[in-house]
Amino acid sequence: MALNVVVMAAGKGTRMKSARAKVLHRLGGRSLLQHVLDAAAPLGAMRTVVVTGHGAEQVEAAVAASGAVFVRQQPQLGTGHAVQQTVPALDDAADTTLILNGDVPLIRPETAAALAAACGGERLALLTVELADPSGYGRIVRDAAGAVTAIVEHKDASDAQRTIREVYTGMMAAPTALLKRWVMALKDDNAQREYYLTDIVGMAVAEGVAVVAAAASGETEVLGVNSPAQLADLERRLQRQRAEALMTAGVRLADPARFDQRGTLECGQDVEIDVNCVFEGRVVLGDGVSIGANCVIRDAEIGAGAVLHPFTHVEGATVGAGALVGPFARLRPGAELGREVHIGNFVEVKNSRLADGAKANHLAYLGDATVGPRVNYGAGSITANYDGANKHRTVIGADAHIGSNCVLVAPVTIGDGATIGAGSTIGKDAPAGQLTVARARQASLPGWQRPKKAPKA
Amino acid sequence: MALNVVVMAAGKGTRMKSARAKVLHRLGGRSLLQHVLDAAAPLGAMRTVVVTGHGAEQVEAAVAASGAVFVRQQPQLGTGHAVQQTVPALDDAADTTLILNGDVPLIRPETAAALAAACGGERLALLTVELADPSGYGRIVRDAAGAVTAIVEHKDASDAQRTIREVYTGMMAAPTALLKRWVMALKDDNAQREYYLTDIVGMAVAEGVAVVAAAASGETEVLGVNSPAQLADLERRLQRQRAEALMTAGVRLADPARFDQRGTLECGQDVEIDVNCVFEGRVVLGDGVSIGANCVIRDAEIGAGAVLHPFTHVEGATVGAGALVGPFARLRPGAELGREVHIGNFVEVKNSRLADGAKANHLAYLGDATVGPRVNYGAGSITANYDGANKHRTVIGADAHIGSNCVLVAPVTIGDGATIGAGSTIGKDAPAGQLTVARARQASLPGWQRPKKAPKA
Amino acid sequence: MALNVVVMAAGKGTRMKSARAKVLHRLGGRSLLQHVLDAAAPLGAMRTVVVTGHGAEQVEAAVAASGAVFVRQQPQLGTGHAVQQTVPALDDAADTTLILNGDVPLIRPETAAALAAACGGERLALLTVELADPSGYGRIVRDAAGAVTAIVEHKDASDAQRTIREVYTGMMAAPTALLKRWVMALKDDNAQREYYLTDIVGMAVAEGVAVVAAAASGETEVLGVNSPAQLADLERRLQRQRAEALMTAGVRLADPARFDQRGTLECGQDVEIDVNCVFEGRVVLGDGVSIGANCVIRDAEIGAGAVLHPFTHVEGATVGAGALVGPFARLRPGAELGREVHIGNFVEVKNSRLADGAKANHLAYLGDATVGPRVNYGAGSITANYDGANKHRTVIGADAHIGSNCVLVAPVTIGDGATIGAGSTIGKDAPAGQLTVARARQASLPGWQRPKKAPKA
Repeated sequence: MALNVVVMAAGKGTRMKSARAKVLHRLGGRSLLQHVLDAAAPLGAMRTVVVTGHGAEQVEAAVAASGAVFVRQQPQLGTGHAVQQTVPALDDAADTTLILNGDVPLIRPETAAALAAACGGERLALLTVELADPSGYGRIVRDAAGAVTAIVEHKDASDAQRTIREVYTGMMAAPTALLKRWVMALKDDNAQREYYLTDIVGMAVAEGVAVVAAAASGETEVLGVNSPAQLADLERRLQRQRAEALMTAGVRLADPARFDQRGTLECGQDVEIDVNCVFEGRVVLGDGVSIGANCVIRDAEIGAGAVLHPFTHVEGATVGAGALVGPFARLRPGAELGREVHIGNFVEVKNSRLADGAKANHLAYLGDATVGPRVNYGAGSITANYDGANKHRTVIGADAHIGSNCVLVAPVTIGDGATIGAGSTIGKDAPAGQLTVARARQASLPGWQRPKKAPKA
Repeated sequence: MALNVVVMAAGKGTRMKSARAKVLHRLGGRSLLQHVLDAAAPLGAMRTVVVTGHGAEQVEAAVAASGAVFVRQQPQLGTGHAVQQTVPALDDAADTTLILNGDVPLIRPETAAALAAACGGERLALLTVELADPSGYGRIVRDAAGAVTAIVEHKDASDAQRTIREVYTGMMAAPTALLKRWVMALKDDNAQREYYLTDIVGMAVAEGVAVVAAAASGETEVLGVNSPAQLADLERRLQRQRAEALMTAGVRLADPARFDQRGTLECGQDVEIDVNCVFEGRVVLGDGVSIGANCVIRDAEIGAGAVLHPFTHVEGATVGAGALVGPFARLRPGAELGREVHIGNFVEVKNSRLADGAKANHLAYLGDATVGPRVNYGAGSITANYDGANKHRTVIGADAHIGSNCVLVAPVTIGDGATIGAGSTIGKDAPAGQLTVARARQASLPGWQRPKKAPKA
Repeated sequence: MALNVVVMAAGKGTRMKSARAKVLHRLGGRSLLQHVLDAAAPLGAMRTVVVTGHGAEQVEAAVAASGAVFVRQQPQLGTGHAVQQTVPALDDAADTTLILNGDVPLIRPETAAALAAACGGERLALLTVELADPSGYGRIVRDAAGAVTAIVEHKDASDAQRTIREVYTGMMAAPTALLKRWVMALKDDNAQREYYLTDIVGMAVAEGVAVVAAAASGETEVLGVNSPAQLADLERRLQRQRAEALMTAGVRLADPARFDQRGTLECGQDVEIDVNCVFEGRVVLGDGVSIGANCVIRDAEIGAGAVLHPFTHVEGATVGAGALVGPFARLRPGAELGREVHIGNFVEVKNSRLADGAKANHLAYLGDATVGPRVNYGAGSITANYDGANKHRTVIGADAHIGSNCVLVAPVTIGDGATIGAGSTIGKDAPAGQLTVARARQASLPGWQRPKKAPKA
């Protein structure tokens, strides 16, 4: 079986009340449309056709890399009209055409494959789902032998039909040649003056083409997004799925309802993640990693046994095995922490490499620095890496001890084993092994009077 | 129809186990009693009478600005006794008197209006609700024609009556003159020796006054608060309502179950709010504002396109369009950030105005400062605005560059385009365009020996 | 009645996918096994026997302090085999032996006692529970008179038996002598070739020993932990129980679903805890304490009326009455704050005592310091307590005023009422009442040119 995939992505999404095209709203870190394209990717379609309309330029730009072909539906005259636009783009060598919805993001690849297989280039296959409350949905009507004979809209359904709980999901697969002919034959002789794709069911039945149903695994994968509330609901369903998958793999989540994974999260053995953490981009957590409450982590690799204390914010960084970070630490892009590095509270590290065992435990900034092993970087110390025009590098040798509230004015090198006295502003290289200070003489003023509280004017 | 409103607010709330009067406990940022007064306000009552008792002084002080009249019920001898106290205060020119409960905070204005209308100065109108489990509540008993004939307490109800799911909510509206006469005729001939307001139903029926029911929209608006658990339950219901309202307006909430709005929150188009944020007081978010995870924001205006990164704490501040704030930033009262201002991690801004494009990206304090456009305020730098007695102002001119770990000792002015060398303590004005430094000479001590680890005593 | 308690703790917990023994996984801050031992403790057993197997050494080490006797089951040949191992260890003077599961952590002491009492040294007592969906569980089969006659496994149950909703929980109590005889008589003539403890029910029935059921209070206390998902589920149930207990005691929780107590939490009257707080170890909150959103607090005592603002991290500290701490503050072990102390944003306090009224409001570090009453400790100031080898103490006298960005190089003493000028590095004692400064002369360079942006290579 060879396949075309059509993704309907022209809708306006009025209830989103957004300047962004509906299918570009983000769920779990990816756009709705990207979810659908990713779900379809394993099917290896000969051609993927995305029907755009509202916000067409935004949409096409956003998924340009997908290799999909775009056709525009303007104006939007219904689902059948949307598929009409795809007719010239469909590959006739693909005997089956699968139609997915760009705003139904959680469709499973397995379900899409089963739907395409149910068509098999011969049958009209409808994706259906059983709902506890089918009100409002089109019911799947079958004959005595169980063959699908029609989709009846809720408003047109008889009382008996309204008891049917199997409903149409908006997704189908059809023999390509028949689909082309059928959609071009659709009429808009209805109140809305739209072309309804579902009308091809009647055509199939009339022509004796078998109409079959493929069942979705459940409600979640067929839910569409039409409003921020529905988007939030799907986000929670997706996050719950991701949490369950991680727990099944052995990750210990303190609260699956307070967990957000918006990209990929690879975890070793015995990883513990406390409440209310957010993971974005690609994050890798080694064996025995512990993530404290309220951490936000994006694009990071955390080595085995490392501990991220609560309120740690990491982006674009690597953390060595056994390192301790936080609480209230921030690792920015290019932070590379070696083994057993300690980064403490109110410390920011950016584009800096800290070798094994280095420590910056309190209120400090390390930017554009190369820090040797076992360096102790004092409380309140700063690398002045920016002169207002250019950024410069600070190099701190092994075992150096930088006192409190120092400024290292880059470019500057602190030698191995050097000690920098507290409160020093260091603008010239400091020799290895020596104490370097830049400190004013301390003096006391015996006659001095403290300022008095000014009288109110 | 002219109206009196009576609010019952004398109860003790023993289960709250609090020194605070029950009706003063806070829900969504306002006291329970204030919720009820606010719900009643649109009715434009001629007189609003609040019955106080336990904690009467606290309660009266808390809502003194409401314009309500207070009557005290001491001791508390039942709901009928409470209304007896209001008799002298009721305005006879108001033909209808509506009785609300100060501990039932989520009553909708529409429901209160409908209840008053159901009375219409002629009928005794009871607010009722259908409960899935009516156990413990007073059932609404009707005759064959559907007219209300009695409220039967659960303990007095027959088995047949116990199947009734329509229950009395404690709220009613009555013709003022009849109410006065009825409540003064109440008797305390019962086990508790209390005067029950509900006994007036029997009086109405006996006199042939029509007793009607007005239906609440649902359970939430008639739930009372008698314990911290009930308070927390109502808080979650209220927050869910507020989250739904925002989402309907187009706001994208990452998790409606982790969202708290305790005041007013106005949002433009395409506002995104990540998990676990708290909004207090009056907050206005412009178009396209993005609020990161775990932000706490009180009394603030955030301009269009501004981004508040995770862990940002804002109180009493304005943020200009396109500004970037956080993570781990704190804006305190009087912080006014211009357009495109950047406030980075571990930075505190208080009572300071930063002009467009100014930046303070790392570990800094700006207090009582006026900062010009495009100023770069270095890492670790501090405005020393407090001399131990008085606060003074720091003025930094346009395009100035303040090095790292500086102290600007106010009152002091840094000229336009001035540069302050890293590590400088600046006590005198710095001229425009020049480099100003206050820095000790750097020296190294070749013979110096590091301290050794002291032997354990 | 005298008691033996057997705790089954040999299981592997394959689905945990952990190197840690299953019963050592933590729930609400204690291991599963510790929960069970703590629940059994009030029973005052003559002997407590823990059956270990997988990870036996870890397990025995972890609960060595409990006074339990350990027996090893290796290999693991079923529940009956596990109890066989305990036979030599059981105290014959205890007429009743209670069998609990180390991976069923929330068993209530009252239920364990009732189960033991149901045995009473004479009867075989099974702990049972009614489940809405009993699928998969062993059903409790009773005769016409209601006497328990068998536990029938789900797979062996008839359709009629499958409708039984009362199931066996895995916990029982048996007369000690009979239990010993019965378990030694068990056979492994089944498909798994295991010894099933439940086979003793048949022996009891055959011998005419009464088999009785004791009912658990509900599902939660009989749920076992076999996977991270089950562990997370029980964690949430436990936290909800703890939240309910606190609310019943009068504590006001903003959201009981976002609350974690992993040790003991004692609260005074009118304590308020905002969303998403985590409490670990032993925490005591005085009357009127307010805990802001997102605080993490471990092993701390917080005095009456103190306010912890959002994002406060406390460990091993005491906070005086009326103190204000945070937001973004960190109190580390040995921090002792007096009354009305203020600790502001980005401030770390470690092993330091601050007397009444002292303040450190901004970006500061206090380590190994003794701070007098009413001291004002300036923004950005640091105690340099570590010389690279040893830690030294800083002493600051009453009413001293430490300017911004100072370093106090310990050991050093600042006299009462002393003032330290901003930006000073103080290495020698500062006299009382005087102004002490260490500051370089400020100079400006008129001809100086700012660095230019380097051309791209």
